[in-house]
Amino acid sequence: MKILVLNSGSSSLKYQLFEMPNEQPLCSGLVDRIGLEGSTITHKNLKSGKEEKFLIETPIQDHEAGLLKVTELLKDTEKGSISDNSEIEAIGHRVVHGGEQFASTTLITEVVKAKIKELFALAPLHNPPNYLGITVAERIFPNAKQVAVFDTAFHQSMPPLAYRYAVPKEMYSQLGIRAYGFHGTSHQYVSKKALKYLQNPNAKIISIHLGNGCSMTAIDSGKSIDTSMGLGPMGGLIMGTRAGDIDPSIIFHLINERGYSSKEVNEILNKKSGLLGLSGFSDMRDVKKAIEEGNKDAKLAYQLYAYRIQKYIGSFTAVLKGLDAIVFTAGIGENDPDMRAEVCKGMDFFGIQLDLLLNSQKTQTIREVNQKGSPVKILVIPTNEELEIGQQTFEIVRK
Amino acid sequence: MKILVLNSGSSSLKYQLFEMPNEQPLCSGLVDRIGLEGSTITHKNLKSGKEEKFLIETPIQDHEAGLLKVTELLKDTEKGSISDNSEIEAIGHRVVHGGEQFASTTLITEVVKAKIKELFALAPLHNPPNYLGITVAERIFPNAKQVAVFDTAFHQSMPPLAYRYAVPKEMYSQLGIRAYGFHGTSHQYVSKKALKYLQNPNAKIISIHLGNGCSMTAIDSGKSIDTSMGLGPMGGLIMGTRAGDIDPSIIFHLINERGYSSKEVNEILNKKSGLLGLSGFSDMRDVKKAIEEGNKDAKLAYQLYAYRIQKYIGSFTAVLKGLDAIVFTAGIGENDPDMRAEVCKGMDFFGIQLDLLLNSQKTQTIREVNQKGSPVKILVIPTNEELEIGQQTFEIVRK
Repeated sequence: MKILVLNSGSSSLKYQLFEMPNEQPLCSGLVDRIGLEGSTITHKNLKSGKEEKFLIETPIQDHEAGLLKVTELLKDTEKGSISDNSEIEAIGHRVVHGGEQFASTTLITEVVKAKIKELFALAPLHNPPNYLGITVAERIFPNAKQVAVFDTAFHQSMPPLAYRYAVPKEMYSQLGIRAYGFHGTSHQYVSKKALKYLQNPNAKIISIHLGNGCSMTAIDSGKSIDTSMGLGPMGGLIMGTRAGDIDPSIIFHLINERGYSSKEVNEILNKKSGLLGLSGFSDMRDVKKAIEEGNKDAKLAYQLYAYRIQKYIGSFTAVLKGLDAIVFTAGIGENDPDMRAEVCKGMDFFGIQLDLLLNSQKTQTIREVNQKGSPVKILVIPTNEELEIGQQTFEIVRK
Repeated sequence: MKILVLNSGSSSLKYQLFEMPNEQPLCSGLVDRIGLEGSTITHKNLKSGKEEKFLIETPIQDHEAGLLKVTELLKDTEKGSISDNSEIEAIGHRVVHGGEQFASTTLITEVVKAKIKELFALAPLHNPPNYLGITVAERIFPNAKQVAVFDTAFHQSMPPLAYRYAVPKEMYSQLGIRAYGFHGTSHQYVSKKALKYLQNPNAKIISIHLGNGCSMTAIDSGKSIDTSMGLGPMGGLIMGTRAGDIDPSIIFHLINERGYSSKEVNEILNKKSGLLGLSGFSDMRDVKKAIEEGNKDAKLAYQLYAYRIQKYIGSFTAVLKGLDAIVFTAGIGENDPDMRAEVCKGMDFFGIQLDLLLNSQKTQTIREVNQKGSPVKILVIPTNEELEIGQQTFEIVRK
């Protein structure tokens, strides 16, 4: 069965085509700058293990035009993998916010679409383009099953102690003000792998997703019981341009005493903070290069990034009442051994003992980088959100 | 030497008179509703161990009038302890915000006053009345030494990793956006007592101040290395009416999607949140009464309050790289054994093992309430911010 995975952003469309159930990726790509000058499609043909890359520069006025171009590429005898649209039996859509309505992956119906629309207020930047992607896919693939995989669903198992804020209770019951958490697909994917690797379905795990966005999740027996992101994807860990946790007083101080507008402050905390705000560089590789050149701001940014992760390891260990393993994943988590070392440094109290040699070696699969006797396992697990979406879509469609 | 301790609020004046160095409290009291209808003075004569209480209802138009009335009471043959103003050799003023300028208690000069004034923007509700108290005291006690004891000073030992936020670095260098921390006088007082009790000057301690305001501090070898409050006194733990930590996204969501003004949100998070927002009751005793009556909101508020403390114990243990003792202090910390039990529940991973019987017993002095073999000591230490201010003032004046 061929399953297409779609991640639709405000001006982009990420896609990957899988053959299921054998999890074979056939094609993948990104339509970028939709509706803007200089639109491009980067398309990869992954069939039979080879990886051919094509860059197509062509005007793309909207998401529908983008998906039509993708369909052409998928059907291209040289670049593609199908001969007709109808071969794609299901499309798995990444949807960022599922609110309290969606605790798992769901077959899309008119009712489901209406609920995704209701959640626009909670995710004004993400849910509208996700919704658009669904309607476009319905038109182009009228016979395929459409499936929604929510970034928040995995965290719906959190108890009220983890998701409630100490704000007036009507704000929860009437406005939905609570923690939802994000990166659920990634945390779920790596924690399933970790439980299998540990051969312990009841293990207490902390998964540490360090990519463009960063978040951590406390996972007990495969279930998310607390996570670092809340109502939106700004809080918690320090990210490339996002501030992570800050004292809310700062926002009011900037508005009331320093003359900023709330819009400006929001923009600053989302786009000009994090590693970028501290060091001038939003990419961790640039931060590291700057450190080598003696840049003290970059060094502080690097250390602060790790310090916050350590604090979350501490608080999530309290929440889990113990710790069996920590899992590093996503771009930085998988590929930056120095950051893993910085995070594990001085964490002996928690039973975290890194093996520096193992940590420095690179592989493409799951691996254990702790010392032999370390009470807590330290795992590096490559995440694959597209595959997880494809798998969950396949599970739904198969039923 | 007689030392007067003053804590000057926007419409109140708290005072306590000590005989030093023997730390004998002579009088204490509160001038309340200054400049408002129904002003009162509650005055206590503490001389020779007896405690006589007087309630005086009289119009008091400003702080100067209030302090003059207090002076009369202090000189009253029945209610007071001195015969002339000049007997008071020093006045210790509580000043909430000392910024980065003040890392310790300071003799007040014109330069010091100018600096306290500069900090009005960082503590617009607190520093102005503190400053007013100083100027009034200078006029009424022209021969006394005036001393400022800052609520932030103890936390000035924090390293940048603890006090910096991941916001644009100019916000730190130009606007002073960083964590300062509060309740420093209390954390310092109880941690000194704890180190002495433990006979270990290098102990790793977490002090938990649970009063009207609540905060926690990670203390290594007597020095604050991290604390739960930040730029202002709103973040960190859940308090009577303050929200403590929240996802900053909530603020922007309420302003941008729900039509609140930033002023309203600030007011809600400071005055309508915390225990009050969750349960309808801001006083922990009322919350507990409601729980007994089966109120589920109150139960959630109570448990969430403890859950957040547990998370901070976890994160501060990571920061301290170990843990020797936790200290409960202030109203709730000293007097609510149920809350102490709730906080210690399930914290065995951290070596925290409460003795329920010892925990339930009441004393007025420092006491150990952990099980005999508990790796981490659990101490209950009554705080005394007035005495700490008096002592620090005495130390400065004696030099």
